[in-house]
Amino acid sequence: MIPNEVDLAEEFGCARATVNRALRELARSGVIDRRRKAGTRVALNPVRRATLEIPVIRQEVEGRGGTYGYALLSREIVSSPADMSDLAAWPEDAHVLHVRALHLSDGRPYAHEDRWVNLEVAPEIEGADLGEVSANEWLVRNVSYSRGRIVLSAGAADARIAEVLGCESGAPVFQIERTTWLHETPITWVRLSYPASHRLSTSI
Amino acid sequence: MIPNEVDLAEEFGCARATVNRALRELARSGVIDRRRKAGTRVALNPVRRATLEIPVIRQEVEGRGGTYGYALLSREIVSSPADMSDLAAWPEDAHVLHVRALHLSDGRPYAHEDRWVNLEVAPEIEGADLGEVSANEWLVRNVSYSRGRIVLSAGAADARIAEVLGCESGAPVFQIERTTWLHETPITWVRLSYPASHRLSTSI
Repeated sequence: MIPNEVDLAEEFGCARATVNRALRELARSGVIDRRRKAGTRVALNPVRRATLEIPVIRQEVEGRGGTYGYALLSREIVSSPADMSDLAAWPEDAHVLHVRALHLSDGRPYAHEDRWVNLEVAPEIEGADLGEVSANEWLVRNVSYSRGRIVLSAGAADARIAEVLGCESGAPVFQIERTTWLHETPITWVRLSYPASHRLSTSI
Repeated sequence: MIPNEVDLAEEFGCARATVNRALRELARSGVIDRRRKAGTRVALNPVRRATLEIPVIRQEVEGRGGTYGYALLSREIVSSPADMSDLAAWPEDAHVLHVRALHLSDGRPYAHEDRWVNLEVAPEIEGADLGEVSANEWLVRNVSYSRGRIVLSAGAADARIAEVLGCESGAPVFQIERTTWLHETPITWVRLSYPASHRLSTSI
């Protein structure tokens, strides 16, 4: 148990607001547990928290020192398939834009993008030139979302992804799935597949 | 460009400290860019940030509703091999504890742990009963670190990991590698390998 804010402010000769801010940072990083009535304790098993940055893929590639490239592989409007409904609480019979694209770094495959966009929420994307600007960047610039979910996993490349990434069918791929919602309505669901050499790093 | 703190405080009838705190939160989540002299702008390509929680594996399993189990697979003291030196700036000729363990959820393989601990920094772990308490929990409780690095990736299960996880050799595994340091000295390097069914989720 650590002293209360007033005592800490006195001990360290600083403003109570400063102590409050410091404790908030420590609680955010998981080192202390703050309970409204029970007081503040040093965490027994500190749950450390790491921050993942989620830039647009162009920035991700450039941030790693590569030259960015992009190719639209396919684009079609479909009714939302059943498996999408499960993943993102997709409305039944919604009109959905399905886009597949390849992101490149220095001319080499960097990530395969498989994306579904709800045209009820983002109808203007129908008129966008997605051969020029990726759906990833178009959405970040044009559609705000209220919340999102990210799921990281390992998977096996299917034949189509293996061909595009230049790996064997069944080879491990690193997957980032992301769903974003505007309030309760899904905007987009995307699965990015990276070759097994991909590393996603962060600090704690 | 958004108004300065004083103007925002006046517009919303609140204290400047409140505006400052709100802007700090928005900057942290990547929605605005704050530059000391250039002022505060809405980010063109907002880099969203997600938080990953890193509990001890017992808590991770229990947080997913499973009953935790643990088995120590091997334990030996070695000189640090060359590949470790690369990964964690491991001191040459350091004495290192190498531990392999299996974490279980409801009796099924949950994650394989391959861990190296620098005995210069954490000599007391030599006396710990790592068959009873995992090195993961022992370290979290007994050794503080000043910084750490986390690397997420997909890999292929080697024969030993495949046998322990109950998957095919070469099958995709989700890998979490973590290095922690006390100032410039590495404390531990660990690679956790999860079956391909594993999902690591977070919200944005």
